[in-house]
Amino acid sequence: MAQKLDPWKSSEISDYSKLFDEFGIQPFAEVLDEIPNPHKYMRRGIIFGHRGYDMIADAIKNQKQFVVLDGFMPTGKAHFGHKMVMDQIVWYQKQGGIAVIGIADREAHAVRDLTWEECKRIGVEEYITSLIALGLQPENARIYFQSECQPVKDLAFELGTKVNFSEMAAIYGFSGETHLAHMIAVLTQGADILHSQLPMYEGPIPVVVPVGADQDPHIRLTRDIASKMNMFLIERREDSKTGKSYWSVRGKNAPEDALKEIDKNIRGGFGGAGVSTKLSKEHIDIFGDISEAELSEIVKNAELAHGGYAFMIPASTYHRFMSGLTGGKMSSSIPESNIALSEDPKSAAKKIMKAKTGGRESAEEQRELGGEFDKCSVYELYLFHLTDDDDELIQVQKECTSGSILCGECKKKAAGKMEAFLTDLQQKREEAFEKLPLFSIDYRK
Amino acid sequence: MAQKLDPWKSSEISDYSKLFDEFGIQPFAEVLDEIPNPHKYMRRGIIFGHRGYDMIADAIKNQKQFVVLDGFMPTGKAHFGHKMVMDQIVWYQKQGGIAVIGIADREAHAVRDLTWEECKRIGVEEYITSLIALGLQPENARIYFQSECQPVKDLAFELGTKVNFSEMAAIYGFSGETHLAHMIAVLTQGADILHSQLPMYEGPIPVVVPVGADQDPHIRLTRDIASKMNMFLIERREDSKTGKSYWSVRGKNAPEDALKEIDKNIRGGFGGAGVSTKLSKEHIDIFGDISEAELSEIVKNAELAHGGYAFMIPASTYHRFMSGLTGGKMSSSIPESNIALSEDPKSAAKKIMKAKTGGRESAEEQRELGGEFDKCSVYELYLFHLTDDDDELIQVQKECTSGSILCGECKKKAAGKMEAFLTDLQQKREEAFEKLPLFSIDYRK
Repeated sequence: MAQKLDPWKSSEISDYSKLFDEFGIQPFAEVLDEIPNPHKYMRRGIIFGHRGYDMIADAIKNQKQFVVLDGFMPTGKAHFGHKMVMDQIVWYQKQGGIAVIGIADREAHAVRDLTWEECKRIGVEEYITSLIALGLQPENARIYFQSECQPVKDLAFELGTKVNFSEMAAIYGFSGETHLAHMIAVLTQGADILHSQLPMYEGPIPVVVPVGADQDPHIRLTRDIASKMNMFLIERREDSKTGKSYWSVRGKNAPEDALKEIDKNIRGGFGGAGVSTKLSKEHIDIFGDISEAELSEIVKNAELAHGGYAFMIPASTYHRFMSGLTGGKMSSSIPESNIALSEDPKSAAKKIMKAKTGGRESAEEQRELGGEFDKCSVYELYLFHLTDDDDELIQVQKECTSGSILCGECKKKAAGKMEAFLTDLQQKREEAFEKLPLFSIDYRK
Repeated sequence: MAQKLDPWKSSEISDYSKLFDEFGIQPFAEVLDEIPNPHKYMRRGIIFGHRGYDMIADAIKNQKQFVVLDGFMPTGKAHFGHKMVMDQIVWYQKQGGIAVIGIADREAHAVRDLTWEECKRIGVEEYITSLIALGLQPENARIYFQSECQPVKDLAFELGTKVNFSEMAAIYGFSGETHLAHMIAVLTQGADILHSQLPMYEGPIPVVVPVGADQDPHIRLTRDIASKMNMFLIERREDSKTGKSYWSVRGKNAPEDALKEIDKNIRGGFGGAGVSTKLSKEHIDIFGDISEAELSEIVKNAELAHGGYAFMIPASTYHRFMSGLTGGKMSSSIPESNIALSEDPKSAAKKIMKAKTGGRESAEEQRELGGEFDKCSVYELYLFHLTDDDDELIQVQKECTSGSILCGECKKKAAGKMEAFLTDLQQKREEAFEKLPLFSIDYRK
């Protein structure tokens, strides 16, 4: 049976490698070397896959403008799973990116039946303040609620002209019972991802969306729609007779004038450099020495001048999930399985002391054989959150496998770190309320 | 086979009486006597059916506030079919109604693929100027484009929480191929009908939507959704033992406080007058002498105070369609079959001179037997448009059936009237452009 990713059913994805084969996600390892100072999630293989990341690596390396975008559905508590995304947003902002954060209140309202007031409270008190506490800076940041962002809502409608019910059903398992607002919420997420490229914001710009693997359906749908929204398709083709390759620019319902303008600008700019064109009714073939970047720029400008979007297809990264502290999945219905960012530090420490580890049957056995850190939820806490220092992480591994430190002592250390982290974070979350106006957010507790 | 009304396929509805039986549309004749100065379409049986019109007749008669709402999809030319709706809007405004007119550019964009600019141009130059030329006054009028009206768009999303794909498919014949924007356009029409009842506009108020019979699916859907959006349902029930009847107010996911408030206000206001209540978790039973109007007012106020809509279920009227001048249906693909409101008066006169009539084989035969006005498209022009004077209409009938006037002479008269009407209307349509700012419409030719 084909594997199905469903963003509304949190599923443990047992075999990530299938994602490469079945869904066309690329291994992140292939682009890792292109990134100057990779995030610990990248170095540690937690971010395991991507789509279209080359343009993001290029933007970071060459200090070009780019956007990091993520959405948070304001339901329940922000927890350490959300922190993974928040950490990445903050990191991208430090790498020069513009951080754009959408609070998906349309989804929470339509799918989870929360009132708009609840969405606002949870959005600010759980998610936005945590993000600010984790280091988001006001400069080069834009935080918005979907319900309050007209360009996002209008773009969602526009995207709806390019996707039909069957496509939605195939991707999300929607049925006849699915409410229309649920479908519109999905379109709105597409608009979250694409709206920064509207002329009123940044215009066409590389955008990266860091998500968990279960969110890939949204990404695929949005990449597909973005491509359908564009007027032109640039392809490399080969002449079947001569074997020579050339560029083809195809206009999909593009105004005739726009295609003519592209033809004129290629000939005007490159005609002297041995570039020739053949203009047909709906496409142009381009022969000779012109780079994809040069061609894309000409096409983009013509498309924008004729009211098109010229969207750059958004990139994404995929990270794997932490296990729950009690073993198995993290679940909000099992409070002991996870820790909220707003949690009392002592309560969090207690949860760690009770967590499932990779310990052996007896202390003797463990001193002899060592622990199994790859089965340990406390080790995962280190791996994902408790240290940015890879050497320290290796030290934790060694102490475990050598049996020199047993689970009790290790948990105590981790619990201490967690308590210190949360004590600091709670302080910063309180301070974050004061900083809300810097992010143009009007809210009082 | 069950008859199906499809607003996107203009269908000749051969047997209007079926609409009463199969779809629950009420005969308009039943409410006609309640209307002080009925419109000619009412007097002449052209408006043949309604839903929930009693509250509108009551509002007109007793000079209470009400809204007349209609939408126009800005595609192609406004013609004499649209004039029927426009005439009614102008008439309701004269009877004291607030006229609210939505230009359905979302539908034109999503379903007919028109650009927003085309929608704007057609909306103003064809529809809005015609409506003003036909007599719409700036006072007590509000004209808007869907794409520019945030409350309408936001309400459309909200309505989407109450209707699922199966319901849409059953009503409109939507399939997997249907684009989501098409579905959102339908929700937006529901929002057109309901949004005047939002607190930012009039609050709960009677609304009437005059439409052709083919538009009933929209009306039924909107009435159904309006009812689902409300917190409370008021019903008359009967005690199975005593046979006594009483009122029941049921809360559908209503806040508990709201139900308690209703109970308190009934007992506070009417407790002394022999009214008693029985409050349960999700409903109140009310015994004794309280009118539906009094009860509705209490329930409405509690619902509004607790963030509900308290929508009054919108009313509608249904009119039959004119035949095409060439016989059969009016069709924009057969220019001779219909006359546009922006048409050159002489061209319109010529079309009438070529129109299909109820004439006999020969002049002799017609002088002897008389014409058949009930088969005559020129008579229909008189019936629908060319005279407001019922006596004149009867005169036309008599001259036809008596054979005293033959078709040529009759057509000439009608053509002359049409030419005069359109000459005057073109003048007024030009003047209407100057009046656009009075309707807060920013547009230049």
